[in-house]
Amino acid sequence: MSVSTTPAVGAVAVADGGVSAPLGFTTSALHCGIKASALDLMVLAVDGTATAAGIFTTNVVKAAPVLLCQEHLGQTGGRARAIVVNSGCANACTGDEGMRNARQMATLTAAGVGCAPEEVLVASTGVIGVGLKMAALTTGIAAATATLARGKGSEAARAIMTTDRFPKEGAVTVQTPSGPFTIGGMAKGAGMIEPKMATMLGFLTTDAAVAPDLLRRALVDTARQTFNAITIDGDTSTNDSLFAFASGQSGVTVTEAEYPLLVEGLVALSRELAMAIVSGGEGATKLIAVRTLGAPDEKTADTVSRTIANSLLVKTAVHGADPNWGRILAAAGRSGVSFDPYAVTVHVGGILLFEKGLPHDESAPLAAEYLRGATIEIDVDLGTRPGATATVWTCDLSAEYVRINGEYRT
Amino acid sequence: MSVSTTPAVGAVAVADGGVSAPLGFTTSALHCGIKASALDLMVLAVDGTATAAGIFTTNVVKAAPVLLCQEHLGQTGGRARAIVVNSGCANACTGDEGMRNARQMATLTAAGVGCAPEEVLVASTGVIGVGLKMAALTTGIAAATATLARGKGSEAARAIMTTDRFPKEGAVTVQTPSGPFTIGGMAKGAGMIEPKMATMLGFLTTDAAVAPDLLRRALVDTARQTFNAITIDGDTSTNDSLFAFASGQSGVTVTEAEYPLLVEGLVALSRELAMAIVSGGEGATKLIAVRTLGAPDEKTADTVSRTIANSLLVKTAVHGADPNWGRILAAAGRSGVSFDPYAVTVHVGGILLFEKGLPHDESAPLAAEYLRGATIEIDVDLGTRPGATATVWTCDLSAEYVRINGEYRT
Repeated sequence: MSVSTTPAVGAVAVADGGVSAPLGFTTSALHCGIKASALDLMVLAVDGTATAAGIFTTNVVKAAPVLLCQEHLGQTGGRARAIVVNSGCANACTGDEGMRNARQMATLTAAGVGCAPEEVLVASTGVIGVGLKMAALTTGIAAATATLARGKGSEAARAIMTTDRFPKEGAVTVQTPSGPFTIGGMAKGAGMIEPKMATMLGFLTTDAAVAPDLLRRALVDTARQTFNAITIDGDTSTNDSLFAFASGQSGVTVTEAEYPLLVEGLVALSRELAMAIVSGGEGATKLIAVRTLGAPDEKTADTVSRTIANSLLVKTAVHGADPNWGRILAAAGRSGVSFDPYAVTVHVGGILLFEKGLPHDESAPLAAEYLRGATIEIDVDLGTRPGATATVWTCDLSAEYVRINGEYRT
Repeated sequence: MSVSTTPAVGAVAVADGGVSAPLGFTTSALHCGIKASALDLMVLAVDGTATAAGIFTTNVVKAAPVLLCQEHLGQTGGRARAIVVNSGCANACTGDEGMRNARQMATLTAAGVGCAPEEVLVASTGVIGVGLKMAALTTGIAAATATLARGKGSEAARAIMTTDRFPKEGAVTVQTPSGPFTIGGMAKGAGMIEPKMATMLGFLTTDAAVAPDLLRRALVDTARQTFNAITIDGDTSTNDSLFAFASGQSGVTVTEAEYPLLVEGLVALSRELAMAIVSGGEGATKLIAVRTLGAPDEKTADTVSRTIANSLLVKTAVHGADPNWGRILAAAGRSGVSFDPYAVTVHVGGILLFEKGLPHDESAPLAAEYLRGATIEIDVDLGTRPGATATVWTCDLSAEYVRINGEYRT
């Protein structure tokens, strides 16, 4: 299943394919033996050298591949030839041997594609605290690098899955005055929901030419509005990583003038991928967009949205189709942000439930009906004019989530 | 059911009774009609004037009785003659009428006990966004103030309950060089678990004489180690309040010399009341003590303990008896505190599960067996020597919690 991207708006239009849709990118995916049977290894390579950027987990406990990517991107100044990704094992909390194994994955991949080891990035996702099966990876990486081709992005998107219910990939084209370029992407993650599964990975490719610094800035700008604006359970894994690669093979160069178009394209695609992660969260039955308006600044708006989105009481209320404005307001009130409760309004699905310090209980039945839907919008306006806005996406909290995460791992 | 307090340790010993165990305090509890049938109104009064202190919710959205108590304690400089408490209605998000009603409750109680309105404190707990039934309260407060007596603390502890599964009360005696004094207490709260229930209330009484400033300091010190060190779902209600009253009628005066003994007694009793709140949390099947050791300072230790205690993944793992050190470590890693993962150890029930960056999976079966118990200890040592320690108590997260909080309120 491919992700349906937003319809063509302005310069950005939906395209076919995933990470190998842009010119210059090839992939290969196979089963090497880390998982029992499914695809568990993926190599993404660039013809020539791409600029590359990465954003990594803020967790103090970082997996070996995260530490290695930070090292390699520093050494190359933001360039790469390939990335190798395995699923089924996170290579996290694996000590010095874990670092040696991550390094060996890069070396094996470099040998296969013909580049220096520091031009290879590495990502792993799966169980924490278990070592990689290096014999399987050695054979697998040799086979994968020998079979790189375009048009196999869907297999790549499946090879990075752990407990994801469906693969997440997509592509868009961006029109610029000097011609079009393409952006492709894929992601995996379902909310750190399986025992010790180390969670979110995202990969974005483009055939625009983008200098390393600009690519990194674009990735940070994009993540802020998309992957960093989702939460399933408030937990941050040891492996969370988001990568961008720019091959330059479209002939279009992105400079400051084209930068807004690049970010527009990256955001359009990334938002769809991020929404798919939330929708696919284990136990999730509803996608919830929490928007805070009328805040003094965007950071404040984000703090309020995030606190509401992570509130167990809000998430269980939405699950039960309960228009419980009291829980929404109480979560906003404990977010650490100062505001005047009398200036606040709370809307659910556009239905006003709280205003001027008082509830609109007459609207509760209508809001309850709305909450039976699959996509829920919660708007909290703090009353500042003109105010800043921030949206955080989350899912509801179901007994199924507890069942899955409370089961003793076997 | 009364709470079993800690056995006699040093100067502190368990005593019979609750808030009216100390000399000088009387209570009265009755059903006035806010709830369908159960006790819903309680007055606690002092013979003469007591010193009084209060700590209130940090939520920006504060209920009317919280605002009134802050006003009255400011006016009197920390003195009170009585407190009136209703359950079934939180008088929160009720606008100006809510403030008028809270004021009227104080005025009616003042008339009954014969004091000034500002010498009366007010607390409400129950549904948010609904107005108080003032006719019922007018009759009820008159009847309650006419029937104040000692030895009725158990009824008072029941009258403040909302969805609590059992009342929480207790008393201790404290030996000082100048003689003994008694501390009594009661509390309610089950984790903001019922739709829009505004949650924790705590009441401590003593017959020691304690100056207002010293009583307030003792209350803050006590709360930090007890009521503020528990979390059920990370939510903070609009009504959370903790009060202390000192009648002085034991003849013992607490000054700086006796201060440590006062705090020791308050902490001993409050810890039992706080633990009872967590144990009684809706859906809770286990009491979890999360202790962080080897932190650079106590605030850091508290941050780590609190992040672990509020992690859905940790709470569901404990519920499922899964010795998932990876979730504990990952929660510590995202707490915002910096530490060296290689210096960290994780113990569950004294069983070492993680050390020097590597798991001790051979101990997992033993830890899983331990986790089937009802009281769980998690210890995370960050490795600083000498280090600071902080403990936060929580409960597990069960599908029952989701069921209760996801049910549409009727």
